[in-house]
Amino acid sequence: MTIGITGTGSYIPPLVVANQNFETSEFLNSDGSPFKQDNSRIIEKFRAITGIEERRYVDNTLNASDIAYLAAEKAIADAGIDKEQLDYIIFAHNFGDVGHGQSQSDTVPSLATRVKHQLRIKNPKCVAYDLLFGCPGWIEGSIQSHAFIKSGIAKKCLVIGAETLSRIVDPYDRDSMIYSDGAGATVIEAKEGAGSVLAHESASYTYEEAYFLFYGKSYRETKDTTKYIKMYGRKIYEFAITYVPKAMALCLEKSGVDIGSVKKIFIHQANEKMDEAIVKRFYGLYKKEVPSGIMPMSIGKLGNSSVATIPTLFDMVRNGKLKDQRVKKGDVVIFASVGAGMNVNAMVYSI
Amino acid sequence: MTIGITGTGSYIPPLVVANQNFETSEFLNSDGSPFKQDNSRIIEKFRAITGIEERRYVDNTLNASDIAYLAAEKAIADAGIDKEQLDYIIFAHNFGDVGHGQSQSDTVPSLATRVKHQLRIKNPKCVAYDLLFGCPGWIEGSIQSHAFIKSGIAKKCLVIGAETLSRIVDPYDRDSMIYSDGAGATVIEAKEGAGSVLAHESASYTYEEAYFLFYGKSYRETKDTTKYIKMYGRKIYEFAITYVPKAMALCLEKSGVDIGSVKKIFIHQANEKMDEAIVKRFYGLYKKEVPSGIMPMSIGKLGNSSVATIPTLFDMVRNGKLKDQRVKKGDVVIFASVGAGMNVNAMVYSI
Repeated sequence: MTIGITGTGSYIPPLVVANQNFETSEFLNSDGSPFKQDNSRIIEKFRAITGIEERRYVDNTLNASDIAYLAAEKAIADAGIDKEQLDYIIFAHNFGDVGHGQSQSDTVPSLATRVKHQLRIKNPKCVAYDLLFGCPGWIEGSIQSHAFIKSGIAKKCLVIGAETLSRIVDPYDRDSMIYSDGAGATVIEAKEGAGSVLAHESASYTYEEAYFLFYGKSYRETKDTTKYIKMYGRKIYEFAITYVPKAMALCLEKSGVDIGSVKKIFIHQANEKMDEAIVKRFYGLYKKEVPSGIMPMSIGKLGNSSVATIPTLFDMVRNGKLKDQRVKKGDVVIFASVGAGMNVNAMVYSI
Repeated sequence: MTIGITGTGSYIPPLVVANQNFETSEFLNSDGSPFKQDNSRIIEKFRAITGIEERRYVDNTLNASDIAYLAAEKAIADAGIDKEQLDYIIFAHNFGDVGHGQSQSDTVPSLATRVKHQLRIKNPKCVAYDLLFGCPGWIEGSIQSHAFIKSGIAKKCLVIGAETLSRIVDPYDRDSMIYSDGAGATVIEAKEGAGSVLAHESASYTYEEAYFLFYGKSYRETKDTTKYIKMYGRKIYEFAITYVPKAMALCLEKSGVDIGSVKKIFIHQANEKMDEAIVKRFYGLYKKEVPSGIMPMSIGKLGNSSVATIPTLFDMVRNGKLKDQRVKKGDVVIFASVGAGMNVNAMVYSI
């Protein structure tokens, strides 16, 4: 009996928002001053660094918990389990449900409760809670479900990552182009012949780094105190390329797996250049070149949907929906993430 | 080696808001119509049912994460541990940091990150996350830390419950008188001679009950879409007196402890009459009368501070700060809670 992922599902919003949509945006510096370059240049530079060509936004009628439900339903069907057998629903997010045109986060009841309600699960022993851990929330939820199963209090868990970042972006901030909406869900269970969590690693760097990602005022001067997602991009970049390879290497060491046996790395889709630098440094620790095709990427078309990027990407590759990217039974893969907190985590997993 | 609570701390805001402060409030029915009774009658009826005479509000400069930090510092000192040895900081809340005069919840970075940052903990292996589980969040965090310790991924955990409900009440809703601010924290660790978690029980009732507690519009007609904490009090009362005794009994059965050996019940301070009815039903299941003094109560002076009520109450009794209420080493007690979700949980614990 191993503890592994037996089902995956995702919801990719149909509304495509291409980079050109930002041609008419009024981007400002953090001090409120305008940029000297025109938007075409800003967008082109943005694309070159992040790799993002387009992103997805939910339609006005849907919230994070709704798209989470849609992903969850698919993951449950994919696992072929009876939904009433779930012991946990763990919902990783960071902003709650933020309705279209609203600025308030709504987290009561919890989003896990909302998903369980929509799934029409009756069993009260299915414990539904929300987990806030920055972008690494889905991996952390997987680690928590693994601990619950190991400790004997659960057998089957549903772990969801979903976010609607389009609802909390400052339109005057060019970083708003990074963010996207999406939902990914997985069923993790103890089962004969399931995959296996071989090792995991988590860390919270809060001493200097706590506010690298934060909720702050618009770059446009206004009396309105509404807060938006904000970040110190350069600091995050430096942080990520230092600590993510380290966490991955520690995790791989714990797993006992040789670096040469790693088949894929599913890394949080935050920024293409940053992800490439992380993986390059990781292989550098072993004095190796990055193997071609090791890192499936979805950021170009899907943007950064926070907690949702990894379960969505894994679902796509697992189902042959990403060009030239396949995984098969027995493949060892690494999941790794970094985000607000600043939190970092990794998981070595045998499919 | 047992897994138990080795330190407690709490922060009770110094600002006392007595019932008389609501004499001039403009309370409305949920349809916006005024009450026929005057406020004195409403307040007297409120006091008779809930037992609340006064509540505490934080001052304008403090948020939930600030008072959590103050409680956490005390719990760590009380446990006599080196803060750098903590493996987890689990912060249970439901609304995040809501600044004075603001309506937006701020949950990025997570409140656990903010507390770790304020505690000046350097160790990145201390994993900090937020848990959203309604009022039963502190008990649930304790259950999660217990699972982490049992599964081998942690030895020492800090579990916090903190909320500033004063920031999210609708002043036109008489239920606003229930809510209070506060923070409670505990250190749970595997240690020779520590107390012991003998059994725990959790449930999420979401099929019909998901929206018994919710975020909704003001009772005063307005174009403003700001949301406030709202509840269907009668439904919650019926729910609580049905399912909380059941969870407590299931938990006690799991623990193998005889009902006659239970020394104290620390129940979520939601409503005095409801808490009394729950405990009466619980003892009724064993055809017993409620033992005198079994249920320490703080609601009269402290109101309902959500996740903070139980760790605060336990801290008070443990330190002899509640009149005629004492616990001693070896006493078996029950923690039990109910809240948004609707979630219910219980823990049988040997001090």
